[in-house]
Amino acid sequence: MKRIVLSILVDNTAGVLSRVAGLFSRRGYNIDSLTVGETQDPAISRMTVLAKGDDQILEQIRKQLMKLEDVREIIELVPGESVTRELILVKVSVSEKDRQSVISIANIFRAKIVDVAPESLIIELTGSQDKVNAFIRLLDQYNIIELVRTGITGLTRGFGDISDFIDETDS
Amino acid sequence: MKRIVLSILVDNTAGVLSRVAGLFSRRGYNIDSLTVGETQDPAISRMTVLAKGDDQILEQIRKQLMKLEDVREIIELVPGESVTRELILVKVSVSEKDRQSVISIANIFRAKIVDVAPESLIIELTGSQDKVNAFIRLLDQYNIIELVRTGITGLTRGFGDISDFIDETDS
Repeated sequence: MKRIVLSILVDNTAGVLSRVAGLFSRRGYNIDSLTVGETQDPAISRMTVLAKGDDQILEQIRKQLMKLEDVREIIELVPGESVTRELILVKVSVSEKDRQSVISIANIFRAKIVDVAPESLIIELTGSQDKVNAFIRLLDQYNIIELVRTGITGLTRGFGDISDFIDETDS
Repeated sequence: MKRIVLSILVDNTAGVLSRVAGLFSRRGYNIDSLTVGETQDPAISRMTVLAKGDDQILEQIRKQLMKLEDVREIIELVPGESVTRELILVKVSVSEKDRQSVISIANIFRAKIVDVAPESLIIELTGSQDKVNAFIRLLDQYNIIELVRTGITGLTRGFGDISDFIDETDS
């Protein structure tokens, strides 16, 4: 089981997301997370997909993705050569007694308190997936009411557009 | 044209993303951004969809979404009653001369420099969509090499699970 992060540049068309997602699901391949948003050019979007699975099937999916008309580029975001980040919002139920401890944990992680209600806090945290998971584990001792994660997004490190790396990752 | 943010709780199955995205695209409805990730319960994921369009069609899509077996809950994240955030990574090409100005802009927005190369910087910013857009506009005077956005994610404010709001938004 390999964990892979694919960064996919696509035309911003109505059906592209469903076509890309469909390719994964038809092979019984679960997508752990997906983010998609516009780039500098509103006609083009970038998707970042985190998936786990068999190397061979992933290679097939990648080849089939490249055949889709609205897919322009696919690269793998390799750890070390790329920066990947995730954003989460966590709503924690806090008693008077627990409030300060939860705020302290947030401070240690440089997380932000973005909403305060009499009996709850919403905390925003951005970081690597490891950091985000460690934060959630620590908060688990309190009462997490809701949790939402964007899923991973990322860029290759250093100078050069992502397209410069395509030959490398495809060879 | 209404701008709507839907928070959709789904079973974490292989086909759910493609089914949800397919519902939007079959009506020619473009999704501006989508994020999907696991919740506290790995069997359940939460999607956040930003879409723009006609009120009536949106209502139809919402009704059809509710009919999907793997959709558990849909709520609209209404501005004021919810916290929405987006994460972006921007790679900017910087000359010796521009480097300090770009870093100053990052500091003003409390953005983080997450990668430094001889001729480029990667900057991470989290915030409301307005803040993120303002940041991108300011950086536009420099050479943006790549830009990736997670798309919006969010939670309702205050105490109470999102399910408490369903009756309200559906009525």
